[in-house]
Amino acid sequence: MFAHTPEPPYYAVIFTSQRTAGDEGYAETADRMVELAAQQPGFLGVESVRGADGLGITVSYWSSEEAIAAWKVHAEHSMARDQGRSRWYAGFEVRVAKVERAYGMRR
Amino acid sequence: MFAHTPEPPYYAVIFTSQRTAGDEGYAETADRMVELAAQQPGFLGVESVRGADGLGITVSYWSSEEAIAAWKVHAEHSMARDQGRSRWYAGFEVRVAKVERAYGMRR
Repeated sequence: MFAHTPEPPYYAVIFTSQRTAGDEGYAETADRMVELAAQQPGFLGVESVRGADGLGITVSYWSSEEAIAAWKVHAEHSMARDQGRSRWYAGFEVRVAKVERAYGMRR
Repeated sequence: MFAHTPEPPYYAVIFTSQRTAGDEGYAETADRMVELAAQQPGFLGVESVRGADGLGITVSYWSSEEAIAAWKVHAEHSMARDQGRSRWYAGFEVRVAKVERAYGMRR
C-alpha cells in the first residue's frame, strides 16, 4: 500500500531488516506497531515490504524530527524494539532522512 | 542485502512501486539497472525488496543530488524508466531524501 504523504518537506525513517527464522510473536507485534504508530502525532504514513528471503524494508513518514523522537521512546514501541534486537532481527539498519522532493504515477 | 553506506550525510532515493501482472522483460531490466547504477559516480549502495503482492520498495543511496540527477538522465536508464511507466508499474512513488543520521545492529 502506498503512503499518501503531503508535499515535502517531511521526514522518512528507512528501516531495513533481516528477520531471524520463526515467527516468535513477530507478526502480531509488527501489526500492533503499525496501528500504534498511526495514532502518534506527526505520523504521515508507512510503506512496508518483506521478501521471501526475510529481508524487509519499512519506510515510515513523519512531519518532524520531534515526532520521530517521541515515537522512538514510546513505552510499548520501546519494548517491541528490545524484542527486535534480542529475537526477531538478525540485523537491521535505521536511516533518518529529510524528504526534499517527491513525484509519482498511478494508473 | 544491506547497503554498506558511509557516515551521513548522503542521499536516498526511495522508490515504492506496484508491479503489473506478468514479467514482460521486467526482471532482466531490473537486474541490469542495478548493475548499471552501481557503475555510476556517487553510487553508494542499494536495498531492494518485493513482496508476493507485487509491492516493492527499492532504496538507492547516493553521495549527492548531482549524482542522482545524472543517473536519472542516463540514456539506458531513461529507456527503462519509459518502459516502467508504460508497462511494468501500475503505480509508483519516488521520494528523494537527505539521510541525516543512521544506526544499526548486526549479529
